[in-house]
Amino acid sequence: MSLKSFLIGSPIETIKEKHERLTKTMGLAVFSSDALSSVAYGPEEILLALMVGGAALLHLSIPIAVGIVILIAIVATSYFQTIHAYPSGGGAYIVAKENLGTYPGLIAGAALLIDYVLTVTVSVSAGIAAVTSAFPGLRDHVVAICLLAIGLIMIINLRGVKESGKIFSLPVYLFVGGLLLLIAASFSRSFSILQPPMPDLKPSAGNLLPMFIILKAFASGCATLTGIEAVSNGVRAFKAPEAKNAGVTLVWMAVILGVLTIGIAYFADYYRILPNANETVLSQLSRTIFSTGPIYYTIQFATSLILILAANTSFADFPRLSSIMATDRYLPRQLSNRGDKLVFSNGILILGFMSAALLVVFRGDTHALIPLYAVGVFTAFTLSQAGMVVHWLKERGDGWMRGIVINGLGTITTGVVLVVIAVEKFEHGAWIVLIAIPALVYLTRKVHQHYESVAEQLSLDSCIIEAKDYQHHSVIVPISGMQQAVIGAIKYGKALSDDVTAVYVYIDPVETRKMKEKWDALCMGVKLEILHSPYRSVTEPLMDYIEGIREKYPDGVITVVLPEFVPSKWWHHLLHNQTALFIKGILLFKKGVVSTSVPFHLRK
Amino acid sequence: MSLKSFLIGSPIETIKEKHERLTKTMGLAVFSSDALSSVAYGPEEILLALMVGGAALLHLSIPIAVGIVILIAIVATSYFQTIHAYPSGGGAYIVAKENLGTYPGLIAGAALLIDYVLTVTVSVSAGIAAVTSAFPGLRDHVVAICLLAIGLIMIINLRGVKESGKIFSLPVYLFVGGLLLLIAASFSRSFSILQPPMPDLKPSAGNLLPMFIILKAFASGCATLTGIEAVSNGVRAFKAPEAKNAGVTLVWMAVILGVLTIGIAYFADYYRILPNANETVLSQLSRTIFSTGPIYYTIQFATSLILILAANTSFADFPRLSSIMATDRYLPRQLSNRGDKLVFSNGILILGFMSAALLVVFRGDTHALIPLYAVGVFTAFTLSQAGMVVHWLKERGDGWMRGIVINGLGTITTGVVLVVIAVEKFEHGAWIVLIAIPALVYLTRKVHQHYESVAEQLSLDSCIIEAKDYQHHSVIVPISGMQQAVIGAIKYGKALSDDVTAVYVYIDPVETRKMKEKWDALCMGVKLEILHSPYRSVTEPLMDYIEGIREKYPDGVITVVLPEFVPSKWWHHLLHNQTALFIKGILLFKKGVVSTSVPFHLRK
Repeated sequence: MSLKSFLIGSPIETIKEKHERLTKTMGLAVFSSDALSSVAYGPEEILLALMVGGAALLHLSIPIAVGIVILIAIVATSYFQTIHAYPSGGGAYIVAKENLGTYPGLIAGAALLIDYVLTVTVSVSAGIAAVTSAFPGLRDHVVAICLLAIGLIMIINLRGVKESGKIFSLPVYLFVGGLLLLIAASFSRSFSILQPPMPDLKPSAGNLLPMFIILKAFASGCATLTGIEAVSNGVRAFKAPEAKNAGVTLVWMAVILGVLTIGIAYFADYYRILPNANETVLSQLSRTIFSTGPIYYTIQFATSLILILAANTSFADFPRLSSIMATDRYLPRQLSNRGDKLVFSNGILILGFMSAALLVVFRGDTHALIPLYAVGVFTAFTLSQAGMVVHWLKERGDGWMRGIVINGLGTITTGVVLVVIAVEKFEHGAWIVLIAIPALVYLTRKVHQHYESVAEQLSLDSCIIEAKDYQHHSVIVPISGMQQAVIGAIKYGKALSDDVTAVYVYIDPVETRKMKEKWDALCMGVKLEILHSPYRSVTEPLMDYIEGIREKYPDGVITVVLPEFVPSKWWHHLLHNQTALFIKGILLFKKGVVSTSVPFHLRK
Repeated sequence: MSLKSFLIGSPIETIKEKHERLTKTMGLAVFSSDALSSVAYGPEEILLALMVGGAALLHLSIPIAVGIVILIAIVATSYFQTIHAYPSGGGAYIVAKENLGTYPGLIAGAALLIDYVLTVTVSVSAGIAAVTSAFPGLRDHVVAICLLAIGLIMIINLRGVKESGKIFSLPVYLFVGGLLLLIAASFSRSFSILQPPMPDLKPSAGNLLPMFIILKAFASGCATLTGIEAVSNGVRAFKAPEAKNAGVTLVWMAVILGVLTIGIAYFADYYRILPNANETVLSQLSRTIFSTGPIYYTIQFATSLILILAANTSFADFPRLSSIMATDRYLPRQLSNRGDKLVFSNGILILGFMSAALLVVFRGDTHALIPLYAVGVFTAFTLSQAGMVVHWLKERGDGWMRGIVINGLGTITTGVVLVVIAVEKFEHGAWIVLIAIPALVYLTRKVHQHYESVAEQLSLDSCIIEAKDYQHHSVIVPISGMQQAVIGAIKYGKALSDDVTAVYVYIDPVETRKMKEKWDALCMGVKLEILHSPYRSVTEPLMDYIEGIREKYPDGVITVVLPEFVPSKWWHHLLHNQTALFIKGILLFKKGVVSTSVPFHLRK
């Protein structure tokens, strides 16, 4: 218990829940780190895809970046509307479920949950890879360091929403500040530094159509959108008014994301920076502007941190989304319990263990997982956009026509990107997600069916009549010999009913005779029944005897009182027959029979 | 249940135990296969050791074989006496414990138990290696085939003593008959076949003293003695009169062992057969006499079988020895239970699983284990011989002086061999046994202490006064909502006592209000107590409440009745809070409180 309180601190009272909410500043840090981290590689992905088409296509990076920013605006607008339409949170899951039906909702939810696990694994291993490439001595311990990082993020999240918000704000704002400074300095330097000549880059793509290259570059750049849905799943984490604050945060995130994407794409083009295997585009741009001074290193450091912290967004969202789905009875109900610090501890722990397991299975080399998660995100985007189109059609409130146009455009764009990614990455592993999502959906359906069936079976409408009292209460105390624990069990049995019988199974004639003599000597005031057992089984004659009593008193109830040893050390269990446990297991399935353990505490 | 009865057959009644005993013929087959199998490699070991000294020393194989046969006679005589002195079985363990004290007894017992595990592993993998060298296609599946063989021997032993005796007699007598035929034919051929000239073998041992080479050859040949103790541990497996029948069997075993050892050593020398890496001495001798006809192949086949069946002796002895030690409270008592077929099933299963685990760990290549088990056997021999010396000194019956001389000589010889083996094989792994034996002895001591302490705590001498009846019986039914399972629990609670209280933990205000309304509407005739829980814990307020009741009725008993869901599928457990289980776990440690589960069966 003291380790627990050392790690996560003392519990928080339920009534203080409102004080645990996030301000907009903290919310931006928590929910945007995933989206913002993609700025570190998004513009680079566009350039990489365009390079195949030679120097002629490279300038297209700017219009493509603009296109992506427009897509960001559409998707963000859509989520902004979702937040206000469904202020209890749930994002794509809720929108799709309410407007498109249960299955689309579950598909969106499953896609996001799988994505969050992948995001933690991929971002932590990518961030740690950046660290170990700076300190090659650590390379042999990559998996251990990654697990440590996951463990740390997990513990900080278990310490409470507010605490994690405080701790993780600094690196996020350091990164945003650094990149804004970089863009500003790039702009001011553009007056003094001569623009380098265009590199002589030949097309390497053979007879690939330029249109196809551009489409692929756009799809690659769409990686920037991952994480933009985060706020929508975490509305309830914000201070009241929740929807308003979440909406403002979402707008700010989208604006920052847009500015950074366009800024970096523009100045990378302006300074003729091309992707190469040894240095990222961001690092090249930053080195061109600041050379390798303290600002350069600060930006590099903040970039590594934000890559790792992308995982934190998952830790904020996975438990919330899964708690919403658990409340709807699509996931185990334990996921909707709030822990000591009012966070959904079970969700945090499950996310931590699942991503750690993935990391161990892939031994820290998670490149294979990267193609997987764009599929999930864009599935959620497409379903969420389509859900909003249906929402406008149903509601027909103010500006519904404009809404349909915007979200319709969003549906088509994100849908096309989804198809492009799924087809292109299919053989690189996207098929795994296309199996995992239906599998998880199937599981949620089974869980739901079980809960519905239990609720129906437990419902009180059908059978108050069953509640009439029992006509007779027979107590049976099976004993294995005359000893202290038996005395306690008989004494307890006598407190339950006047009809108490001790039962002994005859296996060894000498033991049985000794037993009878001791019983008669002690005179417990209870009759002793001796059951024969030709095949040495203890349970069979006992069950036959119980069956006999059941037939004798059909309206009665039978309690089987079993003495239970409580050893002082766990391994002592191995030294005792587990007959009592075995008997209890069988009795669990007999109607009208209840089994009770009277504990007997061994002192040593 | 039907798989079990298919594998091991229907149970045998306790009173039929006497019919399950072994005749001398079957007993010889069961208990001698380990000892007899060593004939297949014993004489070869002597020649191998002597070859180092060159041709001049080779003839010494015959006197050394004679020496080993004398040692066999001494050890067998000693065990013969043990069998009659301690007819309830236990061999070296009992002799050493009775005459030398607890620790020597436990050391002998531990050494033998460890040995039996090693014997199964080594003999099965050696026997299977002989098979796979004939069928190279099977080599990739060595481990699987070995596990299959262990499983098969295990199942046959679980089917009952008599059944295993019947099944395993044929190969043992085939082997004995084959070797006796071989010796007879070798003798008759010696008149017609010219003896080959002595090979020109140069000493390869450098300046090693001949005395040392001879000592080493003797120690190597002592491998023949392994298994000679088997009968002494299994006296109770024989038909009455047990000691007499076991004694006769032991004598027969020793005689056969002696004849085969001397015979093979003599004719191997006569026909100038030398060990080589490609063919065993036995195979060479057999081929010289019979050439490669059906008799040769039959002897080779029987030799492979007896190597595997050496494991069967362990399966006969390990469960018996461990049941004797368990009855003495040095091992878990489950080992002394007889199973459906009256055999000590738990011992058979443990031996099977432990040897299988060793086999998997060593991937079927058990050469490394061979040096280990001679150490254990000779530890047991030495302690058993020394025990008999003390026995003679104490009893001073007929021929006690002769007894002391024989067993004294036996003690010294087996002790010297033990030291030679332990020293020579120390770095090849014998140190493992020298750690494992004390470790197992330590464990048996701890087990014994626990059982002694439990027996003392359970003893009835001290506290009959505690048995006065309880003054009050309070029943508490913690409920999580109004549903069917609660109705059953309350109904049962009312059968126990008139003081029944339902307890509900207040976490969510809306839920609590709904709960109260339903409660009042149903009017269960039981009062409802609502406990506040600012930190959302269910258990803490409940425990505080129980504590309050305990203080109110210090002479009373409290029963906590918990509704327990019994799901129809195991995985449904994951979908329900395990709060009831958790509460029961805590209550196990509260004195004067008993917890009861009233099962509620979910139909689907």
